[in-house]
Parts: sequence; C-alpha cells; structure tokens
Amino acid sequence: MDMLQTLSYAPGRLTLLDQTQLPEIETNVTLTTHEAVFDAIRTMIVRGAPAIGVAAAYGMALAAYQAPETQFLPYMERAGAYLVSARPTAVNLPWAVTRMLKTASAAASLPRPARIAALEAQAAAIHREDETSNRAIGEHLLSLLWDGCGVLTHCNAGVLATTAYGTATAPFYLAAERGWKLRIYADETRPRLQGASLTAYELHRAGLDVTLICDNMAAVLMRDKKIDAVITGCDRVAANGDTANKIGTFNVSILCRHFGVPLYIAAPTSTIDLACPDGAHIPIEERSADEVRRVRHTPITAPDVKVFNPSFDVTPADHIAAIVTEKGILRPPFGPALAKIKE
Amino acid sequence: MDMLQTLSYAPGRLTLLDQTQLPEIETNVTLTTHEAVFDAIRTMIVRGAPAIGVAAAYGMALAAYQAPETQFLPYMERAGAYLVSARPTAVNLPWAVTRMLKTASAAASLPRPARIAALEAQAAAIHREDETSNRAIGEHLLSLLWDGCGVLTHCNAGVLATTAYGTATAPFYLAAERGWKLRIYADETRPRLQGASLTAYELHRAGLDVTLICDNMAAVLMRDKKIDAVITGCDRVAANGDTANKIGTFNVSILCRHFGVPLYIAAPTSTIDLACPDGAHIPIEERSADEVRRVRHTPITAPDVKVFNPSFDVTPADHIAAIVTEKGILRPPFGPALAKIKE
Repeated sequence: MDMLQTLSYAPGRLTLLDQTQLPEIETNVTLTTHEAVFDAIRTMIVRGAPAIGVAAAYGMALAAYQAPETQFLPYMERAGAYLVSARPTAVNLPWAVTRMLKTASAAASLPRPARIAALEAQAAAIHREDETSNRAIGEHLLSLLWDGCGVLTHCNAGVLATTAYGTATAPFYLAAERGWKLRIYADETRPRLQGASLTAYELHRAGLDVTLICDNMAAVLMRDKKIDAVITGCDRVAANGDTANKIGTFNVSILCRHFGVPLYIAAPTSTIDLACPDGAHIPIEERSADEVRRVRHTPITAPDVKVFNPSFDVTPADHIAAIVTEKGILRPPFGPALAKIKE
Repeated sequence: MDMLQTLSYAPGRLTLLDQTQLPEIETNVTLTTHEAVFDAIRTMIVRGAPAIGVAAAYGMALAAYQAPETQFLPYMERAGAYLVSARPTAVNLPWAVTRMLKTASAAASLPRPARIAALEAQAAAIHREDETSNRAIGEHLLSLLWDGCGVLTHCNAGVLATTAYGTATAPFYLAAERGWKLRIYADETRPRLQGASLTAYELHRAGLDVTLICDNMAAVLMRDKKIDAVITGCDRVAANGDTANKIGTFNVSILCRHFGVPLYIAAPTSTIDLACPDGAHIPIEERSADEVRRVRHTPITAPDVKVFNPSFDVTPADHIAAIVTEKGILRPPFGPALAKIKE
C-alpha cells in the first residue's frame, strides 16, 4: 500500500499536499503564516474535517511565530477567530483552535521559544491523535464488515481528509493489510468530485479494488445487491445523532432505508457537537454557482443559469445504523450514547 | 420564447443541431446518407428517443436515395437494421424504422422518384406527429400542475430530445405561453450532463425560470418542499409500466416515494412496448468508462480507475404516479391502461 501524505510540519513550516491539483498533479505547498493556512482551508488545498483541524492547529503554531511580544494572547485570539471563519460547517476547526488557544493561554507567560514549542507540541499531539483515532475507527468499522463484502462511500473521508488512514476509508486500508478483498464503490460526489479525484484516486493508488460511479448510480447497485453497507465521514454530529456531511449523503441515506442497507457514519468524537441539539441547528454553507456550472474549468451549461449549491446536507439520525467513533460503535438511540461518549 | 431547432429536412439532406457541442457552440451538421445518420445517433449528435426516431425515419428516406435500382428492398432492410443497431435501449428507433420499411415495401414497385417521395412523406408525417404529440402530452401534464408550483426534471426530454416542445418539458413551455410561473429544477444528469448542457440550457434560453442542481441535491429540495412533482421522459415503457429512462431516474423515483412527491412519466405511445413484459426485459446499454473518468475532456480521476456506467435504469411501475401520453393520463394499475391505449 502506498498512502498519500496529506500534511507534514517542520518548525515554522507547514507543508500541504495541494488537493485542488489532484488527480492531474501531486504537488505540495509550504506555508509559514496562519493567513496562508486560512487561504489553504478556504480554497480547499486542504479539506476534510480532521485534516482541517490539524492544519488549523499548525496554523496556530505559525501564528505564535508571527505574534508580537507585547500582544501575544490578543494576536493569537484574532488568529484563531480568523482561522475558524475559513469554513463554517466543520466542527474540528473551532475544536482544534480552542485547544490551541488554551495552550497559548497557559504558555503566555513563558519566554517566546518555549511558548512556540508548547504550541508546536500541542499541534503535533492533535496530529498524532488523528492517526491513532483513525486506526481505532477503522478497527471498529471492520468488525461490521466481512471479507468479500461490497461497501459504498461518498465524498472523501479518506487519507486525504485526514492525516493517515482516513475515517470512512480506514477499514478499507486495514482490510487490505489483513488480506481481505472488499469491493469498494466510490460516489464521484458532485459538484467538486472529491469521490472521483480523491477517494477513487487514493484507493486505486494504494492498490485497493475500487469502482467509481456517478452519484445517481448507487440505487442500481443496491437493487442488484452489490452493496452491503455504506460508510461515510461527517462534518458534524448533533446531540441527537443528526449528521452533516457532504451534499448527497442525505440522498444515499434514503436509498439505504429503501433497500435495507446499513449506513455507518465514521465520526471521530471531535466531530460530535453536543452544543448543537439537532440537524436544524447545523449551519449549511452554500458555495459558488460556478462549482455547478463548470466542472474544473469546463462550462457545462449557460454561464448565467441559476444554481442551487448547498455544500452539505443533514442526514437524520433515524437513517443511520451506527455512528462509529474511535471509542466504539454507537447504536440508536444516539442521544444518550453520544452524551455518554463525550463525558 | 425562443425554442431551439433540433432537426430539419430538405430533399436528400437532413440537418441536425450538433448537441455534442452544446452549450459552448450552436452548430448544425448536414447529412446525406443513412450511414451518417447512424453515426450521428451513435455519437449522440442527435439524442432523445423521439428525436432519434424522427432522425432514423429521415435516415431511411436518405437510404432510398442510396438504394440501387435492382436491390431496393434488401438495401432498405439492411439500412434499417443498421440504423436500429445505433442505440439499443430507445424503442422509437425500431418503431420508426419499421414504419418506414412498411412504406418502402408498399412503394417498392413505384418509379424511383415516387418511391423516394413516399418515404420522405412518411418521414415528414412521423416528424409532424412528434410535434402534435408533444403538445398533447404537455396539455395533459399541465392539468396535473398549477401556477407557481415547483417541478424537477431529470436528463433531457426537452425540445432537444424531440423536434418541438419536448415531452417532459412540454408543460413548461405551454405554462410559459399562458403566463404561469413555474419553478423548474433540472438535475444535471451525470455522466453526460444532458440536464445541464441541454435542459437547463434550452429552458434558460427560452426565458423560463430554471435552477440547475447536481443529481445528489434533489433530496434536500424535496425535504424543503420545493418540489411538487417530478416529470421525466422515458426511453421505453414495458407492458407492466416499468420504465427505462436515463440513469438516475430510479434514484429520483425512490426520493419521490420517500417524500410523497408524484413522479409523472412523459411517454409518447411510441415508447410503450407491449412486447416487453417488464423492466427486467429491457436491455440496458453500458457506455464507456471514460464518460465517468472525464467530464468533457477533463480527467477527474486516475485514468485507469474501474468504472460502472449504465446509461439507463429501470423505474418500477409502483414508483410512478402517472404515465402521460399524447392520448391521455394513465394511472395505476398500468398494465390494463397501457394495453388499452395501444389498441
């Protein structure tokens, strides 16, 4: 297996794989300021809730280099607020920034090098926890699958959305490690085609058996009993189990109900937001109409056609068979299970 | 309103709007042989079951020019079989060719100019009937809608799939003629994006209120009660009401059931195939993997990723609220209704 490397850090320098250039080009960008990290999150050079969280954590470490000696904490707070504003839906972003701000506050009275080192150590811890957490999620998900089964995934909750293994893809990589043959199907995931450009790309590159489909083809595969389970990532899980994920997940969840296929949500506990009571309270980002009017740079319709382009949708809790975290598998009713796991 | 012109005919010359060049370029191709018509159908310069039928009819008229004097009928039969083989799923193609072959047979003993004139007259009759039929389908569908309602359509059963009004789009044009304001939503319809490049394009060009969405967004619109009805065309209706249409229609039909939104199939009686007992007997064309791996000429994944690319799917009869023909509205149970209307 040959997993891609989403990001790496050396003191004062964050290196990101530029995911907007995939699948044509594998190229890295190196960033030295938190403003550059904001831009990279905003333009989706780095994307996926866990990877955004880790990138933002390192962005805060870079801010510690930038902060003026006399205004350290106010500068860090402004930098944090700025980073959080880059993408409104993913909860890992404020989660990672809040954790970094606590470290900043604790380290505020230390000499500058120790302050920076403390923030870099905290970001590295967030980074390491991501890999450990993804492996654990993968092991739990694998217990719900079997050698030879067919699994559909939507969007990219893969290596490229995290820093290793991915969340939804973790069982695919772990299955390959133990010699299981899964038949993996990847929705291409319009409008930005993360399923085609990222998921199918990274799984195929790692030598896994992946078949790419358009988003409107999954129903036929389910009717023909080719899909035994659907696994997706998520951007935010509300306290009642309602789950925000990439646009199209809700559509797949309705197919799952229709055909009796279980939908499993791979959810690091960092994506569980108990402060959010239900899906109606999750802000849904609308993105540019040109994402739909064009594919990459190719126009597919008249340039001024009206467009509806929500970036995410909410899958109601009662469409979900299990929410799988690094701490274990949660089954309905999700409210009490989520509250318990976040204790 | 400014409806596009899909095809026109002058003696010995069939002119087609090249739909593979839309939306960037509106350009025509002129054909003088039935082989060229085969190529145009195969490469989807002309597409949509009714338009394919009319094009094939004119293709048979062109074959009459090409046929050697001593081998007229055998030549016409070979030409007909060749044209029928261009696209396997649409039933209008064999239907139109069979009708032209009957005329050829009846006119076989006439002098060459009269023979050609008879075939051209028959093709023109098929052409005229398409427009009359579409208007009638549109009137019937309009009786199921109301001023201000929201309608979703999938793929292109529009002017560009026919020779005027379209089938599924006919009520949209007729509503505009009488001053109704419909909110029309068009699925982009991957992989070939006929909804974006053709439906949204032709409706927008005609000044109608159309909003383009990706195929995976309709569920959100239905949840938010923006869609009061779904209208699609079809390529073939089986004797029990099972309906083959562009890939993704089955997915939409499951959403319709989930949300209680009626699905109306616009079906000229020529698309009803009583010889086909049910959906399991409709051949489903699989097309090139590169249609999914690329959008137009832009690669969206690794060049050798495996792909599943069925061009059509079958919507089971019990997902359909009404089949709307030029002769009237059919309601379930469709078996007896379809048999009666084909009498």
